[in-house]
Amino acid sequence: MKKYETEIRVIYADTDAMGIVYHTNYIKWFEAGRNEFLRQIGYPYSRLEEEGIWLPVIAVTCEYKHPGKYDDILLIKSWVKELRAATVLMGYEIFRKETGELLVTGTSKHGITSPELKPVRLKKVNPTLYDRLAEDLES
Amino acid sequence: MKKYETEIRVIYADTDAMGIVYHTNYIKWFEAGRNEFLRQIGYPYSRLEEEGIWLPVIAVTCEYKHPGKYDDILLIKSWVKELRAATVLMGYEIFRKETGELLVTGTSKHGITSPELKPVRLKKVNPTLYDRLAEDLES
Amino acid sequence: MKKYETEIRVIYADTDAMGIVYHTNYIKWFEAGRNEFLRQIGYPYSRLEEEGIWLPVIAVTCEYKHPGKYDDILLIKSWVKELRAATVLMGYEIFRKETGELLVTGTSKHGITSPELKPVRLKKVNPTLYDRLAEDLES
Amino acid sequence: MKKYETEIRVIYADTDAMGIVYHTNYIKWFEAGRNEFLRQIGYPYSRLEEEGIWLPVIAVTCEYKHPGKYDDILLIKSWVKELRAATVLMGYEIFRKETGELLVTGTSKHGITSPELKPVRLKKVNPTLYDRLAEDLES
Repeated sequence: MKKYETEIRVIYADTDAMGIVYHTNYIKWFEAGRNEFLRQIGYPYSRLEEEGIWLPVIAVTCEYKHPGKYDDILLIKSWVKELRAATVLMGYEIFRKETGELLVTGTSKHGITSPELKPVRLKKVNPTLYDRLAEDLES
Repeated sequence: MKKYETEIRVIYADTDAMGIVYHTNYIKWFEAGRNEFLRQIGYPYSRLEEEGIWLPVIAVTCEYKHPGKYDDILLIKSWVKELRAATVLMGYEIFRKETGELLVTGTSKHGITSPELKPVRLKKVNPTLYDRLAEDLES
Repeated sequence: MKKYETEIRVIYADTDAMGIVYHTNYIKWFEAGRNEFLRQIGYPYSRLEEEGIWLPVIAVTCEYKHPGKYDDILLIKSWVKELRAATVLMGYEIFRKETGELLVTGTSKHGITSPELKPVRLKKVNPTLYDRLAEDLES
Repeated sequence: MKKYETEIRVIYADTDAMGIVYHTNYIKWFEAGRNEFLRQIGYPYSRLEEEGIWLPVIAVTCEYKHPGKYDDILLIKSWVKELRAATVLMGYEIFRKETGELLVTGTSKHGITSPELKPVRLKKVNPTLYDRLAEDLES
């Protein structure tokens, strides 16, 4: 599966009184990774919305292996893990760039819906995007 | 000036690696204080929006005197400091409830606008609310 | 299993441009629920830390059923789902208080460690707390 | 005065139910700008801390001119506005990169202190850094 990359620099705002990155911030950065993934395949989320395709989050998981610290550059890898008729599962890995350590892994599951949050069949409403996502899955 | 009160409990998410509350969170809690102030005078922000009155933030200031800590209960006091034709200036104080120490003081300045962000004269569009705010100023 | 309750009022800061609560905020509120749970059973997290017991987050999951909105009062229920030698799994439900709708369910898994993040056997280092948690599990 | 630049991409997490960037996030990005400024002049904040020099925030101001939106790239300019014996005032401007529009201006005032938060005379404890900051002020 092809993985797409983006980077984030940790600031004090992202840390907590334990001296490490507060755990929900990684899940927020999954969003940053997902946005860049969509942009890199030519479908920035704003374009999807214009076409009437929404990707509401229906579930997330996150596993914490090592703590991120202030001023770390984090490397976020994002990819399509599963593609169903009306849902898509994204996978994520976040690394400390300097050392290559894997800090966090996770997933986010998204409905593929109309702006009224009705499920839509991506294959039907945007076959080009569907094929594009399926292609990554196989590679 | 009559001051309105609300409370917040600090969690780890609100702290940073210096072991104290991250400084922008207090300004977020000004919003919580403002919301409760409006609710207590009978004009919750959602009601204002239904009447077509918006209060976009046009400036904030914040001064930091002592740091808040994990698990502190913070007492937020909010009040109307100045009322002009199409702007309102709110004042805030945030105390550590247990000790009574003043941690932070600040202000937020709001336009009084239509949903299209055109200034509206509050005295004209909602004289009852205008008088209610003016009354607090004098007390 | 006995469930412990706390409440949160949604402010604009918690929402996003889709007009609903941004999805990672619920996981932040799991922390608020967990803090209150520990306080209610007599072991506020600060007391645990003083005794040298840390509960670092090692995994979270969250499922989204209905969106929270600005000004909603959210009811957070928290409870011990599983207790192992050196880990504890917490369960959460978040409801819209006004309607009783279940918005979100989730879990957080915690190591039970020393401040150096070495696993500790809770039963040995604090049998009273271990029994207290086990008791809730059975009720 | 020499201005230092950094960039941030707005994600959904940064927006609110009004469809725009939530106002306290710009002040958080002032921190990102300040961090990059210090790095660019050769004194990353982590190095300052190692030398026992802290820069706690003692006041912030922020004025909002135009709203940032989802997916905007924001250009943050940061500079030294005033340098006193034991305080430094930073200035900030945040622009929408694509259009060049100025969205926000602001300041942050910092004590120059020991880790115990006692004021220190920068000119005495680190004359090289003092001169470096003074040089920027004059240019």
